[in-house]
Amino acid sequence: MKQEVINIAKQAQEASRALGNLSTEKKNKALLAMANALVKNAAYIKKENAKDARFAKSIGKSSAFVDRLLLDDKRIVKMADGLRQVARLKDPVGDIMKSWKRPNGLLIKKVRVPIGVIGIIYESRPDVTSDCISLCLKSGNAVILRGGKESIHSNIAIFETLKKAASKCGLPSGSFNLIKRTEHEAVKFLLGLNDYIDLIIPRGGEALIREVVKYSKIPVIKHYKGVCHTYVDKDADINMAMKVCFNAKVQRPATCNAMETMLVHESIAKKFLPAMTRKFKDAGVEIRGCAKTRKIVSGVKQAKESDWGTEFLALILAVKVVKNLEEAIAHITRYGTKHSDAIITRNKKAAEEFLNRIDAACVFLNTSTRFTDGNQFGMGAEIGISTDKIHARGPMALEELCSYKYKIYGKGQLRN
Amino acid sequence: MKQEVINIAKQAQEASRALGNLSTEKKNKALLAMANALVKNAAYIKKENAKDARFAKSIGKSSAFVDRLLLDDKRIVKMADGLRQVARLKDPVGDIMKSWKRPNGLLIKKVRVPIGVIGIIYESRPDVTSDCISLCLKSGNAVILRGGKESIHSNIAIFETLKKAASKCGLPSGSFNLIKRTEHEAVKFLLGLNDYIDLIIPRGGEALIREVVKYSKIPVIKHYKGVCHTYVDKDADINMAMKVCFNAKVQRPATCNAMETMLVHESIAKKFLPAMTRKFKDAGVEIRGCAKTRKIVSGVKQAKESDWGTEFLALILAVKVVKNLEEAIAHITRYGTKHSDAIITRNKKAAEEFLNRIDAACVFLNTSTRFTDGNQFGMGAEIGISTDKIHARGPMALEELCSYKYKIYGKGQLRN
Repeated sequence: MKQEVINIAKQAQEASRALGNLSTEKKNKALLAMANALVKNAAYIKKENAKDARFAKSIGKSSAFVDRLLLDDKRIVKMADGLRQVARLKDPVGDIMKSWKRPNGLLIKKVRVPIGVIGIIYESRPDVTSDCISLCLKSGNAVILRGGKESIHSNIAIFETLKKAASKCGLPSGSFNLIKRTEHEAVKFLLGLNDYIDLIIPRGGEALIREVVKYSKIPVIKHYKGVCHTYVDKDADINMAMKVCFNAKVQRPATCNAMETMLVHESIAKKFLPAMTRKFKDAGVEIRGCAKTRKIVSGVKQAKESDWGTEFLALILAVKVVKNLEEAIAHITRYGTKHSDAIITRNKKAAEEFLNRIDAACVFLNTSTRFTDGNQFGMGAEIGISTDKIHARGPMALEELCSYKYKIYGKGQLRN
Repeated sequence: MKQEVINIAKQAQEASRALGNLSTEKKNKALLAMANALVKNAAYIKKENAKDARFAKSIGKSSAFVDRLLLDDKRIVKMADGLRQVARLKDPVGDIMKSWKRPNGLLIKKVRVPIGVIGIIYESRPDVTSDCISLCLKSGNAVILRGGKESIHSNIAIFETLKKAASKCGLPSGSFNLIKRTEHEAVKFLLGLNDYIDLIIPRGGEALIREVVKYSKIPVIKHYKGVCHTYVDKDADINMAMKVCFNAKVQRPATCNAMETMLVHESIAKKFLPAMTRKFKDAGVEIRGCAKTRKIVSGVKQAKESDWGTEFLALILAVKVVKNLEEAIAHITRYGTKHSDAIITRNKKAAEEFLNRIDAACVFLNTSTRFTDGNQFGMGAEIGISTDKIHARGPMALEELCSYKYKIYGKGQLRN
């Protein structure tokens, strides 16, 4: 097993050296050919996928799990469209991020380059396979994929289809790689190969991510969880606050950027909370409120200490009435996860105070935390959302998959 | 011990929340007061420093070691000048790195913010104490310092002097912190506190850095070593090549950006090597050459396999004659450390090929690798040089000590 994994890592490193200098045209041509191959091989992919679905059902996986796993023609076309979309995105490699001349005449250019070899550890969502391959390829990185064992047949089918198409277009053979061994030990071993792999991006639930961080000798960019807050200030437009909070909680509650806790200024609570909670209840949202909330609205469950800071990922909302902006900031600082937090207010001073002091990847004024997303930001894609502060923060796409180098042009200058 | 370290980490995190929003004016005022305090307390600092020097001598440390440790009036003034220089640098915090509007009217600003809490693990160079405090303060980060035990009295004296001055200027008390416990276990424990510390920067030899990487649960930005190459191409200006190579090797051989291996194109070797090696030998440089080098120049020691890839940090140079640019790139790819590598050539195509394909933080054309340095780059300071590719690469100063956040301004936009 070890030799197999190490050979893959070596191949990936070898390929990454060529990939970094591949032309945009060649990368795009390969991406389009890969998209066509996916559609052409739909029958084969579906056949392999059916094996995974049967297995998942046989071991008693939930219907939601099996649904995420399933690939039909529509989903395969969607994966292919994803590849075509990445082909249309601007190539980040070679961008001159900054350029300046020193008094001694040295010209310094800060140039965007690929990171090198990226390892992706993910759960059983076969569409992640093609997503990550396309984004890493366009950003000039070699990639090593390790997906969940429940989707292994689907992953192999997608991977082999894409690989064959890419190699016909002349891409280096180690450009993308799939660890086909499903033992747990293979992941642990991979995470120790810091001589070959430059970055690990885990994609999945918190347990998976904590496990990766625990074992990795390679830098990890991670997304632990999104406990997102919306604070309705005393100077909020109540009508806007109702719509934005409803959107943040209800539009897609299972996502990391959905609101989990709503904070309400006490001087607006009596006007705002009764109508707001009614709207939530009509949509099936369970409210867990603080004592003050329960005085204003009847029939609200008492929030437990553990409800603050919980990522429900469901139609459940914790609600707290706060004395002022200061208490709202203190609450978010204590229970937040540095993902996305919003303030609803017409008061510019309060808004800037909130946006400056809340330590989160994305801080919002008068809009929904649901906008934390690579596509919504205009990045055209997303490989994940970072809750880290090192390298990349918030939505990550092609630029975030790059590092940089300095090119220094001289004419014989010497250092004194 | 553990409680002491954890209290420091908590204080630092608390302080970092205020530091991130401190005005430039307040930070600069503190830096100038701190500079004055250093000079005013020179007698106290020298007295404490003398204790360290006596101890270092008593345990048989080398005279070079003791010299690096020693603080006289000149060095104290230099530290103070360093603080004043950092006060003059542009404040990176709050910079709008990018700003754009989405079709739905959302205004997105990418804004530079401090990283948070930075831990610095260093050896026995007391000037690092004031350097790191000033750079972290100006970039809005709280800092936790842990220096070598041989300079503990000096570090405490500098730290207490700076802290008193800073607190008179109203800086939060946990802004900078020194771990005064000298046990090895204190470092290991510190490296596990990923809930409080955002980044570790080790400063010192390779052994120290490997140790830090081994134990850290916190992201580490590191500098392993600099095995820097200069490749003298067939189209080099020989006169320029002689001067640049001499500068890269001899001007300050003990630094990480000094040249350790010189590669020479075989078609220029006979013209270039005899005069070049004579010049090196006159300056006391020991040459260790490949077989081809030894055929051209007599009296050259045979290079062993282990000489390629060795960071001599001394007047020793490995020399290899290569067939072409391709072999030069292959050699550097195999033995280099992604730090700094140079090509000397008048051939533009060869130059771009080299600069694009060499995977190093800094790639130079027709100049000395010795220019890899924050001050030489015009950053005004340097907290270290990163040989990593994640977050920061090459010289690191104020901007590299920052992360970013997205501020998103809406008018009630909802996600569909």
